[in-house]
Amino acid sequence: MNREELLRKADHTLLKQTAVWEDIKTLCDDAIRFHTASVCVPPCFVAPVKEYVGDRMRVCTVIGFPNGYNTTAVKVFETEEAIRQGADEVDMVINIGLLRAGKDDAVLDEIRALREASKGHILKVIVETCLLTQEEKVRVCKLVTEAGADYIKTSTGFSTGGATPEDIELFAANVGPNVKIKASGGITSFEDAETLVRLGADRLGTSRLVKIAKE
Amino acid sequence: MNREELLRKADHTLLKQTAVWEDIKTLCDDAIRFHTASVCVPPCFVAPVKEYVGDRMRVCTVIGFPNGYNTTAVKVFETEEAIRQGADEVDMVINIGLLRAGKDDAVLDEIRALREASKGHILKVIVETCLLTQEEKVRVCKLVTEAGADYIKTSTGFSTGGATPEDIELFAANVGPNVKIKASGGITSFEDAETLVRLGADRLGTSRLVKIAKE
Repeated sequence: MNREELLRKADHTLLKQTAVWEDIKTLCDDAIRFHTASVCVPPCFVAPVKEYVGDRMRVCTVIGFPNGYNTTAVKVFETEEAIRQGADEVDMVINIGLLRAGKDDAVLDEIRALREASKGHILKVIVETCLLTQEEKVRVCKLVTEAGADYIKTSTGFSTGGATPEDIELFAANVGPNVKIKASGGITSFEDAETLVRLGADRLGTSRLVKIAKE
Repeated sequence: MNREELLRKADHTLLKQTAVWEDIKTLCDDAIRFHTASVCVPPCFVAPVKEYVGDRMRVCTVIGFPNGYNTTAVKVFETEEAIRQGADEVDMVINIGLLRAGKDDAVLDEIRALREASKGHILKVIVETCLLTQEEKVRVCKLVTEAGADYIKTSTGFSTGGATPEDIELFAANVGPNVKIKASGGITSFEDAETLVRLGADRLGTSRLVKIAKE
């Protein structure tokens, strides 16, 4: 794949706590210039980003991010508000403690509630692979599939690790045909990106590809 | 100060993404046994913790945690729900990007909105000192004072650093008489704790003191 094709799969992302509007504006300009799939920003920037990019770029944000242990009601409220303010895509974090405790029904119910709240928009489900066992990763693939989410996503970028080729292969082997894969965290080169896409990733959460393309 | 006095100032805290109910239950049992000021848990555990501890322990949770860049509406919703579910104290994270951008009025408005939503309960304001300049720290002391919050708090424990003696001194010199100080992040011994209290801290966010007391 060439660089243009890989950039078209990138959610060009800035989720640092310290980001200010000038940083976010540059992110949007770069996303538009390099034709990325979306620009991914903190919830408080959705409204001004939508106003700035209009229909020139898809707007993505994060829900229950990055720890995932908000209540379901808060995640639903945050999703509905983000969509009202112009988000085209929402990337939610699962409740990792519930998955670890084997409360799969509760994890499924929460994803379903956010599926409902985000109807007609793209829902990605971040499972934070670096904190899960192999068995938990397989279980969550089935839950994300059953809930009807659009994507399963590896990582927040705020925990102990990011996307690995092994996890993309595991996802590809265990999600249903309705679920695509987003690799995120630690993607630092076009070679990384191409490997992950070749193994099954359809989206890439990163800011590095655009940075490299700019150089 | 002796260990008992320091433990009475501790918010006994567990905010790991991977925590399950058994971990939280042990946290509550230990908090009750060692007479800490409160038990501090993720929002999704407020309801079961309140049911479990009843009036034997104060319940504290976190709002807009740890990155602080949720919308004000989401932080207000999360605060109201937490209090409805039994939280006695809420520790909110400020919008760090707004502070950095010099939008002090917006930072103040948000703290005021959460002050209103948490009326009659304790409101602590986490400013994430490790991401701020000296000048930003001084400014945020004034904003927290003006908003009428009960505490200013150093750190989430999820960024690049925790409470330092220097920051407690800076807080003590710059907040108004209505604002107390909570030191959190990286407190690993009773000696640390005593130093921070001597410099002005009234609460300590940590799980280490109870762990040491148990040994």
